[in-house]
Amino acid sequence: MFSITIQPRFGDTDCLGHINNVVPAIWFETARNPILKIFTPDMIIDENFSLIIAHTDYDYVDELFYRYEVDIRTWISHIGHKSFTVYHEAWQEGRLCVKGSVVIVHYDFKTKQSTPLPEDKKGLLEEHLNSTKQ
Amino acid sequence: MFSITIQPRFGDTDCLGHINNVVPAIWFETARNPILKIFTPDMIIDENFSLIIAHTDYDYVDELFYRYEVDIRTWISHIGHKSFTVYHEAWQEGRLCVKGSVVIVHYDFKTKQSTPLPEDKKGLLEEHLNSTKQ
Amino acid sequence: MFSITIQPRFGDTDCLGHINNVVPAIWFETARNPILKIFTPDMIIDENFSLIIAHTDYDYVDELFYRYEVDIRTWISHIGHKSFTVYHEAWQEGRLCVKGSVVIVHYDFKTKQSTPLPEDKKGLLEEHLNSTKQ
Amino acid sequence: MFSITIQPRFGDTDCLGHINNVVPAIWFETARNPILKIFTPDMIIDENFSLIIAHTDYDYVDELFYRYEVDIRTWISHIGHKSFTVYHEAWQEGRLCVKGSVVIVHYDFKTKQSTPLPEDKKGLLEEHLNSTKQ
Repeated sequence: MFSITIQPRFGDTDCLGHINNVVPAIWFETARNPILKIFTPDMIIDENFSLIIAHTDYDYVDELFYRYEVDIRTWISHIGHKSFTVYHEAWQEGRLCVKGSVVIVHYDFKTKQSTPLPEDKKGLLEEHLNSTKQ
Repeated sequence: MFSITIQPRFGDTDCLGHINNVVPAIWFETARNPILKIFTPDMIIDENFSLIIAHTDYDYVDELFYRYEVDIRTWISHIGHKSFTVYHEAWQEGRLCVKGSVVIVHYDFKTKQSTPLPEDKKGLLEEHLNSTKQ
Repeated sequence: MFSITIQPRFGDTDCLGHINNVVPAIWFETARNPILKIFTPDMIIDENFSLIIAHTDYDYVDELFYRYEVDIRTWISHIGHKSFTVYHEAWQEGRLCVKGSVVIVHYDFKTKQSTPLPEDKKGLLEEHLNSTKQ
Repeated sequence: MFSITIQPRFGDTDCLGHINNVVPAIWFETARNPILKIFTPDMIIDENFSLIIAHTDYDYVDELFYRYEVDIRTWISHIGHKSFTVYHEAWQEGRLCVKGSVVIVHYDFKTKQSTPLPEDKKGLLEEHLNSTKQ
């Protein structure tokens, strides 16, 4: 599991007084930094970068408030041949507030084609695999 | 169908040179303004506001670029008893780039319970219903 | 003058019920698209791109609401040797709500040095010059 | 001084490969959470909230990259009768990258008028006062 803690920002709320629905997707992207680092250890993004997002789905199960920290917990829920799935949860004060999955394809931006996940990267992803999460 | 045209902004791109995956969710929210107006004609959001997002899922099917306008096309794809589903598509230069659904629940923020969709609102949603979209 | 109209988005508001202070800077960036086009007519951003933001200052003079369209009016307020200043105003319902300036430097990203504004670009900027604005 | 550390997010970059100019304003808003807490200890924002942003100005002095953490350092640079100024710096790898000020007015949202800063709040702000910063 990967774990980060987020301090919500005043502008993350909307006029209903809760965190706006777009914001968890932003937090989840930050939470994927260590996964990106598996594929790009120096974190320099150039034409050799090999990941592309194909799908996201999120369930909003409880309200998120400005005034509490948010814990983002992240697992790998599935590892396929050319893609893998990241599963995120956003927790606040012991309540699960948002959960969902991001399907990431291993991709060659020069040939514009998906390519097999390298075995060594699969191994590093497997360390965080929890296939019960979805 | 509801339709709006978006001018991408420089900062909507990320270091890969394409529109970042979070951005279409932001555009789709703008595209839902006329749906929100069905429920809140004066667009004044207060404790009587009655909509809450329960689920989003998006498929990223082609790259979005900074340099072209984006057409957002929006339909109602399902109308249930206490919720309805909005379906969005983002098109650029004749290419479908992102598509996906947002499930919106009719909700009473005071009692914190979902409530039946009023019949008159259902009628207004039905004018934009296209159940083939999903 | 350059002019665009913005439909605020639900999530542009914050829990105070008004448009969050960061949002006008986002709108102003969209409003600068035609200025960027003067320097990069094909809107393809690569290592030859020649503009960098050095300074922004904004005055928040009145509240911006979700429910009204926003008119963004943009002028060039100053043209220097290696930089120029863009001046933006955000209007809603006949009220000036935010105004401010963005100083943009003509810059060579390869040598990491500011460079003189080309004369032809200066000429195109001058068509939108209004030095009374600031 | 108030201090927080930010992990940049992939989407904080733009197609030039650096952090987009709007993003530091977002980080600075997060950095002001403890200042907001001085005025609203329970962090519940309602009609009694008493702060409004009147002005921001930022200098972009060096490039910010995705791959390094960002340290945000925040001081109170001026305390007036009805307003105060917050001064922020964003540092990366020992380099000052963005600096700037935010003028915040003590405001009564019900009467829509600025009001004097309470003496006890002034005292709490003074603990973080550094008038050499600007």
